[in-house]
Amino acid sequence: MRDFTDTRDWEQFHSPKNLSMALSVEASELVECFQWLTEEQSNSLSADQLAAVADEIADVQMYLVRLADKVGVDIVSAVDQKIVKNEKKYPVEKVKGSSKKYNEYE
Amino acid sequence: MRDFTDTRDWEQFHSPKNLSMALSVEASELVECFQWLTEEQSNSLSADQLAAVADEIADVQMYLVRLADKVGVDIVSAVDQKIVKNEKKYPVEKVKGSSKKYNEYE
Amino acid sequence: MRDFTDTRDWEQFHSPKNLSMALSVEASELVECFQWLTEEQSNSLSADQLAAVADEIADVQMYLVRLADKVGVDIVSAVDQKIVKNEKKYPVEKVKGSSKKYNEYE
Amino acid sequence: MRDFTDTRDWEQFHSPKNLSMALSVEASELVECFQWLTEEQSNSLSADQLAAVADEIADVQMYLVRLADKVGVDIVSAVDQKIVKNEKKYPVEKVKGSSKKYNEYE
Repeated sequence: MRDFTDTRDWEQFHSPKNLSMALSVEASELVECFQWLTEEQSNSLSADQLAAVADEIADVQMYLVRLADKVGVDIVSAVDQKIVKNEKKYPVEKVKGSSKKYNEYE
Repeated sequence: MRDFTDTRDWEQFHSPKNLSMALSVEASELVECFQWLTEEQSNSLSADQLAAVADEIADVQMYLVRLADKVGVDIVSAVDQKIVKNEKKYPVEKVKGSSKKYNEYE
Repeated sequence: MRDFTDTRDWEQFHSPKNLSMALSVEASELVECFQWLTEEQSNSLSADQLAAVADEIADVQMYLVRLADKVGVDIVSAVDQKIVKNEKKYPVEKVKGSSKKYNEYE
Repeated sequence: MRDFTDTRDWEQFHSPKNLSMALSVEASELVECFQWLTEEQSNSLSADQLAAVADEIADVQMYLVRLADKVGVDIVSAVDQKIVKNEKKYPVEKVKGSSKKYNEYE
């Protein structure tokens, strides 16, 4: 991806600020795939819908890798650390069977 | 991550529709890290800013993996296919040195 | 709002680019209010949920006014023009009772 | 707008949850207009760029009005209350000339 950008002289556009914008735009294109579907429908996509979703998932992943590369973040290690944090923040015994809604913990 | 969700009884919340929403919310939290910075400042983050950015990158990655898992998309293969598409859509000889702005191709 | 920004020396941050970012962040905070609710639950919010939603609606509206003011767009006239466009794009006789899904027209 | 939606049988799609998604998608289309521009360029848009921005501003405004209508929020009064809150949260004497960055207050 570095090479793809570099050979096209697009490095000039790829500040972390701009990449965060592009990432959120692609995330919204994913939302657009689902916005008028019911939750149930979102669980059984047609082949066309699935192809569109796969395309947008790829776009999000690519901008995320670009951004992480530019700011020097190792995604795998960032995820590992976040999982440890989340396990402390949402202990199973506190969450399971609680009448609290999911995002009341956040 | 499947296990993390399952042991907390959170599977009920994780329809693809809802996961696309959560993903875009996390992408916006990344945007929030950069919104008042200049592009130049976004290239030289402080340790605190970088830690916040790494955290949000992890959140985006985790929801992306969850969503891809739920709809049955293999992220690596989706990215591979998208790179091939992009190479056709933006050929180096057409893009390099062109006076067109980046997103006029999209 | 011009005065609010000006007296705080915040004008320097309010480029249209930055305001579009802030607007989308606030729109995502609205999404966050609804992300784990069912559609049905989203139709009958508690007082607390409604207060949070009202707050975010206000934030979106305020950044939209700021942005429109900075680029010189009259919101009311932009909306009037868009309604005319939409009436042509989605004629009642073509849409009503169609088996097409909503966003297949877009 | 109620009438526009109703005559097209689109009321079924317009749960507050779905409208929040559509709103954030439109906000991202605004971001898309600005993502590869510098802040300076975003201050002097061409006629074509401005027309695109005006269109997206209208879309955001329309979904915001729809959403507010569905949940029963009066936008003007929500904004009035938010301005009062913001004046307390960011007092001029504390903000002006402070070396703190804008979002360090948030």
